[in-house]
Amino acid sequence: MHEINHPDRLFPVNGDQRKLARNLYETIKDLPIISPHGHTDPTWFHTNQNFANATSLLLTPDHYLLRMFYSQGIDLETMGRGLDSDSQAMELAWKTFASHLHLFWGTPSWIWLNHVFSEVFGLKEELNGENAMNFYHEINRQLGTDEFKPNALLERFNIELIATTDDAIDELHQHTHKKVIPTFRPDRLTDPEHEDFASHMETLSVQTGENVSLVKGYLNALKMRREFFKTKGTTATDHGHATAWTLNLSENQLQALLDKALKSSLTPSEAEQFRAAMLVEMAKMSLDDGLVMQIHPGSHRNHNHYLFQKFGRDVGADIPQSTEYTHALKDLLNTVGNEKDMKLIIFTLDESRYSSELAPLAGHYPALKLGPAWWFHDSFEGMMRFRERTMETAGFYNTVGFNDDTRAFFSIPARHDVARRVDCHFISKLVLEHRLTEKAAFKLIQDLTYHLPKKAYNL
Amino acid sequence: MHEINHPDRLFPVNGDQRKLARNLYETIKDLPIISPHGHTDPTWFHTNQNFANATSLLLTPDHYLLRMFYSQGIDLETMGRGLDSDSQAMELAWKTFASHLHLFWGTPSWIWLNHVFSEVFGLKEELNGENAMNFYHEINRQLGTDEFKPNALLERFNIELIATTDDAIDELHQHTHKKVIPTFRPDRLTDPEHEDFASHMETLSVQTGENVSLVKGYLNALKMRREFFKTKGTTATDHGHATAWTLNLSENQLQALLDKALKSSLTPSEAEQFRAAMLVEMAKMSLDDGLVMQIHPGSHRNHNHYLFQKFGRDVGADIPQSTEYTHALKDLLNTVGNEKDMKLIIFTLDESRYSSELAPLAGHYPALKLGPAWWFHDSFEGMMRFRERTMETAGFYNTVGFNDDTRAFFSIPARHDVARRVDCHFISKLVLEHRLTEKAAFKLIQDLTYHLPKKAYNL
Amino acid sequence: MHEINHPDRLFPVNGDQRKLARNLYETIKDLPIISPHGHTDPTWFHTNQNFANATSLLLTPDHYLLRMFYSQGIDLETMGRGLDSDSQAMELAWKTFASHLHLFWGTPSWIWLNHVFSEVFGLKEELNGENAMNFYHEINRQLGTDEFKPNALLERFNIELIATTDDAIDELHQHTHKKVIPTFRPDRLTDPEHEDFASHMETLSVQTGENVSLVKGYLNALKMRREFFKTKGTTATDHGHATAWTLNLSENQLQALLDKALKSSLTPSEAEQFRAAMLVEMAKMSLDDGLVMQIHPGSHRNHNHYLFQKFGRDVGADIPQSTEYTHALKDLLNTVGNEKDMKLIIFTLDESRYSSELAPLAGHYPALKLGPAWWFHDSFEGMMRFRERTMETAGFYNTVGFNDDTRAFFSIPARHDVARRVDCHFISKLVLEHRLTEKAAFKLIQDLTYHLPKKAYNL
Repeated sequence: MHEINHPDRLFPVNGDQRKLARNLYETIKDLPIISPHGHTDPTWFHTNQNFANATSLLLTPDHYLLRMFYSQGIDLETMGRGLDSDSQAMELAWKTFASHLHLFWGTPSWIWLNHVFSEVFGLKEELNGENAMNFYHEINRQLGTDEFKPNALLERFNIELIATTDDAIDELHQHTHKKVIPTFRPDRLTDPEHEDFASHMETLSVQTGENVSLVKGYLNALKMRREFFKTKGTTATDHGHATAWTLNLSENQLQALLDKALKSSLTPSEAEQFRAAMLVEMAKMSLDDGLVMQIHPGSHRNHNHYLFQKFGRDVGADIPQSTEYTHALKDLLNTVGNEKDMKLIIFTLDESRYSSELAPLAGHYPALKLGPAWWFHDSFEGMMRFRERTMETAGFYNTVGFNDDTRAFFSIPARHDVARRVDCHFISKLVLEHRLTEKAAFKLIQDLTYHLPKKAYNL
Repeated sequence: MHEINHPDRLFPVNGDQRKLARNLYETIKDLPIISPHGHTDPTWFHTNQNFANATSLLLTPDHYLLRMFYSQGIDLETMGRGLDSDSQAMELAWKTFASHLHLFWGTPSWIWLNHVFSEVFGLKEELNGENAMNFYHEINRQLGTDEFKPNALLERFNIELIATTDDAIDELHQHTHKKVIPTFRPDRLTDPEHEDFASHMETLSVQTGENVSLVKGYLNALKMRREFFKTKGTTATDHGHATAWTLNLSENQLQALLDKALKSSLTPSEAEQFRAAMLVEMAKMSLDDGLVMQIHPGSHRNHNHYLFQKFGRDVGADIPQSTEYTHALKDLLNTVGNEKDMKLIIFTLDESRYSSELAPLAGHYPALKLGPAWWFHDSFEGMMRFRERTMETAGFYNTVGFNDDTRAFFSIPARHDVARRVDCHFISKLVLEHRLTEKAAFKLIQDLTYHLPKKAYNL
Repeated sequence: MHEINHPDRLFPVNGDQRKLARNLYETIKDLPIISPHGHTDPTWFHTNQNFANATSLLLTPDHYLLRMFYSQGIDLETMGRGLDSDSQAMELAWKTFASHLHLFWGTPSWIWLNHVFSEVFGLKEELNGENAMNFYHEINRQLGTDEFKPNALLERFNIELIATTDDAIDELHQHTHKKVIPTFRPDRLTDPEHEDFASHMETLSVQTGENVSLVKGYLNALKMRREFFKTKGTTATDHGHATAWTLNLSENQLQALLDKALKSSLTPSEAEQFRAAMLVEMAKMSLDDGLVMQIHPGSHRNHNHYLFQKFGRDVGADIPQSTEYTHALKDLLNTVGNEKDMKLIIFTLDESRYSSELAPLAGHYPALKLGPAWWFHDSFEGMMRFRERTMETAGFYNTVGFNDDTRAFFSIPARHDVARRVDCHFISKLVLEHRLTEKAAFKLIQDLTYHLPKKAYNL
C-alpha cells in the first residue's frame, strides 16, 4: 500500500530530515493555491460545463505525455490527437496510455498523474493495462457529476486565484469568474515574424482607433489594450521570445523597423531588433501602469517541420536553446532595472545560466525577480537545482514562489503540491545542516508558498 | 579490511537506501556484459596470445592515467610510453605509478584499478610504493597463464558481445571471434581535413571500384563498405565530429564541396559544411540499411601541439568544447528523426546541454536516444548528473544503457560494475523518496543493465 | 541553543557521515590560515590603528551585503555608503541591516556574519531589529580595545600569511608587516580600455626609465616592476579579464597595437587582441621570474550605469558572463603549459565549464591548476559543485586549496572555516561510499587545507 501517491513522497530519506520536512509541509499543505501564470481555458469557468472524458481531459492536451509517446514511436493519432469526438479513438488512446506508463518512471508526469487519480478521483491503484477501462469509466462517471464542474473544482482545489494567458487583442468575454484573471500577452503584436502579426495589427487598429503604422499610435494602442486588461483584473504581462535580447532604440529607429515590419520586409536580424526594442517599450509601459512584466526566453519553436505542418503550433516540438542574459537584458535593466516600483520576472530553460547570470542579476537589480523552475524543469530535480544554484546569490526573497504554467487543470493541485514538498525537502536540509534556523524555516516556507507569489504579482 | 574494492562501494550512505541498492544490485550483478561501443583490439581475440606485462597492459595504453601523471609533471617516457620492449622502463613506470596513486583519489580510475587488482588478479591490498614490485611480478605471472588468454577472459568477464571501432576501409581480417563485432567508423572518409583523407579515399576507390570523385560513386562506395561491415556482424556506425552540426545539401552543392575537398582547397568553413552534410548522408544510409548511428561530438583534438608532434594523435590532449545541439541537429532530425525504424544515439561532453537540449530532443524524436555519460563523465558523479538531468524529461526509456568506450580490456568488468552500482544507487533514492515503486525499480534495473543496450544496438 | 553558529554546521545530516566529517575537521580546524589571494588593505597592518565602528567595518565595504539590500529596494545611502563619518547614518544603516537579516537566509553571508558575531565578538544570539543597538555598541566597544588592533587580530585569526592585491605601479610603502605580501596586478597597464591606462603608462615610464611606447621598453618596464614586487615578498600575479582569451603575437604585431593603444584609437576587437597578447607575455615573464600567474576571467564590469555614475567602480554591478576556456587558453598553454616550473591558476564564474573544459585542461597541462570556487560560488553549494565536477577528471592534486578573495578582514576566519567544513563534508561522503579510504581522507584534508595552497603559491 501507499506505493502510489505515498504521503511522504518527495521527502528526504533520512529519518530526522523527513520528519522536519513533514512538519514543515503540515503547516502549508492547506494554504490556498495562488496560480499567477497558467494556461487554463477561461471558458471552462465561464460556462461551467462538465468535462467530456478522461482522454480528452487528461491525455490529449498534455504535451508532456504526447511528447513521450511520440518519442517512443507511438503516433499522435493513436493517442487521440484531433479525434476528441470519436469515442472509440478515446478509449484506444486511454488503453495505449495505461499500458505504457513505464515510460514516465522518474518523470514529474508520473507523480502528477498518480496524484490526480488518487486524490481527485479516489483511484488508489496504479493504472495499468488491465485496470485501464475501470479507470476510464470511473473517471468519466465522476466527470459527469456536479462536483466535477469547473467552478466546483476551483473551490475543491482550494484555488484562491488563477491567471490565464490571453492574446492582447482578446476581448476577454470569458473572464467572468472573479477568481480567474487574464494575463496580457502581446507576442503576436510584437513579433513581426509571427504569421498572425499583420492580422493582429489590423485588429488592434480597429479596436483602439489608433494609427498603428506610426510608432506613437502603435505604442498608444498597446497601452490602451493594457488598460483594458487591467479593468478585467490583469496584474501581469507575459512575453515569450526566442532570446532574452533587449535593445534601446530611438523613436525614429523603431519607426524605420515598423515600416518594414508592416511591409513584411524585415531581415531576420531586423526582426530580432524589433522584438528586442519592443521588450524595452513594454518594460517602460510596465513602469507606468504597474503591470508585472514576465519574460520567458529560450524556446526554439516548431523544431519538427513534419509535425508542425501536420498539427500546427504547440505540437511541433518546442526545444530549448542556449540563452544569454547578462548582455541581453542590459538595455532593459539600465532603463527600468533600478526602479523600485517596477517588477520584472525572468524564467529560463537554460539552467547553466542560473548561477552565473540570473542569480547575480536578481541579487542586484531592484526590479528583477527570478521565476520558478520552468517547463522541463518543473520537477523534483529541476526545482532542487533551481534552489541550489540561485539561493546563495539571489537569496529566497528575490524569487516569486511557484507557477504551474499549465493548461492541465486537474494537475494544478498536484503541481503545487510537488513544489511545496520540494521546498520542504530542500529547507529541511538547510536546517539540519545548520544553515538556517528552524524558526526561520517555518516562516520561509509560508512565504515561498503563499506570500511571495501574492507580492510578486501584485495580488 | 575491505578498504579497497568494498562490496558496498558506490552505494548510498543511508542504511535503508543502501539495503535497497544492494538488493537491486544482487539481481543484476551477474547479468552478461553487453559492450556495444568500445575500442579493444580485435587482434587479441583473433590470435589469443597472452598479454606481455602489467605496464604495457594496464598503464601505457590508459589515457586517463597518462594524462594525470603528465599534469603533475611526470614525463610520458617515465610512464613507459613508447618503451614497451624495454623491461627496465616497464618496471620503472610501474614503480612510479604505484607511488603516485594518491593522484587518482576520487577519480574513477582509482575504483577501476582496485577492481582489477582485487577481482581479476586477487590482489586485495592497496597498491603502493612498497608492494609495487610484488604486484608487478604477480600480475605478470598470471598474465602468462592460459586462464589469462584473451578468449578465456572474454568468458571469465561474462562478456556476451563486444564491439570494436574500425576504420571504414578496414578489411576486418581480425574479426574472427563470434562475440567480437566491428563498428563502422568513416571519419577519415568524411572529414576532408583529416590527414588521411586523400589516401583513404584512394583505398576506398580501389576497394569498391567506384569513382569516388563523384558524389554518387562516393556515397555508393560508402554504402558498399557498410554492407561489407554488416556481413561481419556490424550493427552500428560511429561518428566523432568536433561539432554536432548537420546540414542538408543538394547533390550539386555536395559535389562542389567534394571537388574542392579532393583538391585540398576547402576553407575551414566549407570543410565543416562537408562534414555536416555527410552526417545527413550517413543518417539516410542508416535509415536504409538499419545500422544504428552514433554521434559523439565536441572534442577539440590535439590541443597540445608539443605532445602531438612528439607522440601523434590520441596523446595530444583532446579537450572538450562547448557544444550546441538544438540547431545543429535540426537538419538531420528533420530528415530522419521522425522515422520509427531509425536509431540515432547522441553523446555529449558538454553536460550543460543535458537538460536544456538533449533531454528535450530525445524526449520528442522517435529516432533519437541518449548515449550514456561519456568519457570524462564515465564516473560516479558524471553518471549521477546524467540521470538527474535527463530522466525527468527524456525518461529512462530514451536512453541506451551503458557503454564502456575503452581500449583497456581488463577494466571492462570494472566499468560495467560501476555503472550498475550507480544506477542501483540512483534508483534506490527514487524508491525511498516514493518517486518510483519498488516493483518498477526491479524491472527498470534489468532494462538499464541488459535489455536497453541490446535493443538500442539491434543485438 | 546553538541555532546560530552550530558546532556541526555544514556537516552532513547522516549520523555516521557527520561523525567522520567532524573527526576530519578536528584534525585541521586549528591549522594556520594561508590566504594567498585577497583584498585587505595593507595600511591596516602598517599603521595598526583600531577600526572605527561596526557599520564601516562589517557593512559598507561588503559588496555581498550591499547588493542584496539594493536588490530589495534599499538605497545604498541608507546602508551608509559614502557616509562613514556620519555616526547617525552609521547607526541607521546598522538598524536597517539588523531588521533585514532574513534576506540572507541560505546565503554564505548569513553563515559568515554569525561566525563573526559569535566567535570574534562573543555575541551568541541572532542579530535582529531588537538587539541591533546592543550588538552595535558592544562591537564598537570591542573594536576600540588593543585586542582588536589589526596586528593582534592577525595572530588571533591564526593567519600565517596573507596576500593583498596591488596595482603594478604601487610603491608598496604599506607592506611592512612580514605576514602581509603584495600581489602584482597589472590590469591597468595591460587593458588599453581602462580609464587609467594612459596615466598609469606614464607613471610606469617615470618609475622605470623605460620608453614604454616601444614594446621592448614596455615589457621591460613590466619585468622591472615584477622584480620590485618580488623584493617585497610577492609570489604571484593576478589578472582580471572579461574573457580568458590569449593570443600569440609577434613583436611587430604587438607594437602596431601598442601604437594605437597609446593614441586611444584601438577598436574594441583590437583592444581585446592587446589584452589577449599581454596574457601570453605575462605568462612568459612568469616562466622566467617564477611568479605564479592567476587569471580570473568572465566578469562583465559596471553593468549598472546609474550606480557606476553615482558611486564608481566596484559598486556598478559586476555580473558574470559566459566564458570559454578550451580555445581561449590555447595560445597561452601551447606557449608555457608544458613547463613544469610554470604555475598558472585559473578561476571561473561560469560553472558550466568546470567539467567540460577546466577539469580536462587541468588534468592534462603540467602548468595549469584550478583555483577554488570563486566569488558567487564561495559558498556551500558552490564549493560542492566545484568538487563534484572537477575531482573526477582533474583529481584533488590539480587544485590549490582555498582563497578567501575578500576585503572583509573579519570574515576571513569564517570563510576558511566554511571551506574546511565543506571539504570535510565532501570527503566524508567519499569514504562512506567507499570511493576513498579513511586513511587517505585524513591525509587529503591536511593537503587541501594547508599544503596545497603553500605549494601552489610558492610560499
